[in-house]
Amino acid sequence: MKISKNLGAIRHRIAIVSGKGGVGKSTVTAGIAYNLARSGLKVGILDADVSGPNIPHLLNVEAEKMQVSQEGLLPVIAAYGIKIASAESLVESSDTPIVWRGPMRSSLINQFLADMLWGELDYLLVDLPPGTGDEPLSIMQTIPLTGLVIVSTPSSLSILDVSKIINMAKTMNVRVIGMVENMAYYECPGCHEKVYPFGKGNVKALSDKYQLRLIGQMPLDPLNTGKDIITSDDSPAVRMTAEITRTIEDLL
Amino acid sequence: MKISKNLGAIRHRIAIVSGKGGVGKSTVTAGIAYNLARSGLKVGILDADVSGPNIPHLLNVEAEKMQVSQEGLLPVIAAYGIKIASAESLVESSDTPIVWRGPMRSSLINQFLADMLWGELDYLLVDLPPGTGDEPLSIMQTIPLTGLVIVSTPSSLSILDVSKIINMAKTMNVRVIGMVENMAYYECPGCHEKVYPFGKGNVKALSDKYQLRLIGQMPLDPLNTGKDIITSDDSPAVRMTAEITRTIEDLL
Repeated sequence: MKISKNLGAIRHRIAIVSGKGGVGKSTVTAGIAYNLARSGLKVGILDADVSGPNIPHLLNVEAEKMQVSQEGLLPVIAAYGIKIASAESLVESSDTPIVWRGPMRSSLINQFLADMLWGELDYLLVDLPPGTGDEPLSIMQTIPLTGLVIVSTPSSLSILDVSKIINMAKTMNVRVIGMVENMAYYECPGCHEKVYPFGKGNVKALSDKYQLRLIGQMPLDPLNTGKDIITSDDSPAVRMTAEITRTIEDLL
Repeated sequence: MKISKNLGAIRHRIAIVSGKGGVGKSTVTAGIAYNLARSGLKVGILDADVSGPNIPHLLNVEAEKMQVSQEGLLPVIAAYGIKIASAESLVESSDTPIVWRGPMRSSLINQFLADMLWGELDYLLVDLPPGTGDEPLSIMQTIPLTGLVIVSTPSSLSILDVSKIINMAKTMNVRVIGMVENMAYYECPGCHEKVYPFGKGNVKALSDKYQLRLIGQMPLDPLNTGKDIITSDDSPAVRMTAEITRTIEDLL
């Protein structure tokens, strides 16, 4: 009741999911949010990965802490006014673990939904933890989602786990907007040979099998060297999700 | 009570953990198990990743289902007699999602501990899901672990999340045997240039910071093409964990 009232001024609610961790879900979420916000839209991100929150780090606001006002919780503000709710912004330092069982994690997410002062938004993106556990279940049950964006690498393990989340979405009657293939290939910086370390065509085959749209392919960036933080309009994560962002806007 | 009796004939209990998903934790677990079993030791794997179980797939027994006898649950048997308990071996097909909340997932793990007919084992390896949620907490609280093996890639997000799990282990007084660096580098199949896509030296720096031993480095295999299943003694996952397995044995 309180949640639907609090989310009442939000036009689109999109969850970014994957069956497996480490496929770049948070990077895709941060990149899409940045591209949307840069084009003048009002954007919020709910980082629903309570025990491995990465959004504040990726959007370069790791040091900021969440504030409380009389009206409710105040999101942390990143570039172009992106509003962020994340467990990371509650703990003192980034190496502090949040050792919470499922019910406590779900209750924090509910608080982010009910008490966070989101205000008017064009997009609320929800970055879900991998798998089909407490958080995806809570989000799919609690808020009316516009749809899901599914991220997968071509590795057989990622494909295996993603098919589980596709079936979960089906069971819960949530629309899948499309699939993003990440770490699709890399180009050797030396000889420019294109290499497909996790296989070629696997994500396309999966999206065909379930009649889902493949809305983008992102390469493994050999020059990334672990620096995935978005610091400017020219950051790799922003460039690689620009086209995907436009496709999502077109599909809604 | 029942658990400690059931695990009474197990010499070493090692959990393989990571802060973040997709860093190769299950591949490392399967590889170490295979190497131990091949050398004549009795090995079991508890796949504690209930909502993203990958061990049966990696050890090529995905089609096998778990059986029940009058005495208890019978593990699925893989190469060299490796005994496997996994949620994957309970569901009908590999794309069936297990949409369970934390308490149910923990209760399945407890059943694997209490009712699985492990018998006499030299090693029980526990493959934990990423993060600091229900399953790592349950395992660390329920069974006396010989120690943890922590897997990380050099990416800044993996490093961020791994430092959380190191602090969780400290808080719960669990020994860290050592750290494994995965996806450390790759060699271009064309020009043989060595590339460090996630950065160089990050995992070494982290292990130094927490005074942990770096027990191995594994490359990103450009010829893997997504085929990570272990089918023979010569499979990449087996070769890449052979040295790490020996180091772990020496350290215990």
